[in-house]
Amino acid sequence: MISVFGMSDSGNCYKLRLALEQLQVPYRWEEVDSVNGGTRTAEFLAMNPNGKVPTVRLENGEYLSESNAILFYLADGSALWPQERLLQARVLQWMFFEQYSHEPYIAVARYICRFLPPDHARRAELPRLHERGAQALQVMETHLSRQDFFGGSAYSIADIALFAYTHKSAEGRFDLAPYPAIRRWIERVAAQPRFVPMVAAGA
Amino acid sequence: MISVFGMSDSGNCYKLRLALEQLQVPYRWEEVDSVNGGTRTAEFLAMNPNGKVPTVRLENGEYLSESNAILFYLADGSALWPQERLLQARVLQWMFFEQYSHEPYIAVARYICRFLPPDHARRAELPRLHERGAQALQVMETHLSRQDFFGGSAYSIADIALFAYTHKSAEGRFDLAPYPAIRRWIERVAAQPRFVPMVAAGA
Repeated sequence: MISVFGMSDSGNCYKLRLALEQLQVPYRWEEVDSVNGGTRTAEFLAMNPNGKVPTVRLENGEYLSESNAILFYLADGSALWPQERLLQARVLQWMFFEQYSHEPYIAVARYICRFLPPDHARRAELPRLHERGAQALQVMETHLSRQDFFGGSAYSIADIALFAYTHKSAEGRFDLAPYPAIRRWIERVAAQPRFVPMVAAGA
Repeated sequence: MISVFGMSDSGNCYKLRLALEQLQVPYRWEEVDSVNGGTRTAEFLAMNPNGKVPTVRLENGEYLSESNAILFYLADGSALWPQERLLQARVLQWMFFEQYSHEPYIAVARYICRFLPPDHARRAELPRLHERGAQALQVMETHLSRQDFFGGSAYSIADIALFAYTHKSAEGRFDLAPYPAIRRWIERVAAQPRFVPMVAAGA
């Protein structure tokens, strides 16, 4: 059985929970408190030298990291991964967009607002994070005003990757009111079969 | 024929030139000066609303962006992309690592040192970029002390993705002396068939 080493309150980790539930793949969840040093132990670094959740242990004992690479691995042969090469590349295009142009702003703003004390020096980063995050949301809005999902007409792992932090962006003080196409897409994703919400550990 | 809209002096764009040459795929190169606003024109934003090079126009007229997603598209059916799903996921793991944990430090330090004036305020970012970039180099060194390439025993698009900015890291004032496995890997990549060096436009 696959073991997921993840923090429930992390969007990158929630991506895997959502995909595993929708794919009906059995898994074991090992909670790691990455905010309080859980990814900096020698034991964790032996699994992933880059010290980040999520990391998974596969059935053959090998470890795999990077949430979007794990999504790719899990989605093999399923409806969450298109069959045509150009559509596959399009799905990956949006997943690289997510990691480079979206997560570093939208997830980091949420991290600062949610996990750091109100007087923390990193609050000074918020104006720049909000500016860059809004640019990413506008790119998504432009796409979603033309197509229902990021891979085109079908729900895919690109939607899972972008949904994770977008639907929690208010926790980083982003306002989705100016993005009606994103708000409708969030409703479409939440209406997918076997959808599960993101829930913090112990909640 | 594929058209690449790229800046020759960008590592993300060089990835595509190297792959296209090694795959012997004919292409047209359209130079875009992304440092001086070339990706902010209405014409460019119509091709890629995220306003970044490289962007390619495929033979069917569609556009694709994100350097690593384009590498995936180009490598289909070639030796640069492994056949086994776990190895494919491993290749993508390193490509997501490159975009999240490597490029934002090593490429950005190079950008600041190479393209901004010596008194520019962004020079203040360099200490943090050097600290984080060194962490990424250490993760690479650990891997390369055990395996010849990032996908395992065979050269792949993961090596192309990581080679682009790593082999030019001295231009961002990184010193590769403490990383002998990386230095040997750079020599292995440069010795691959049909390797072409990164050359600035007009050089």
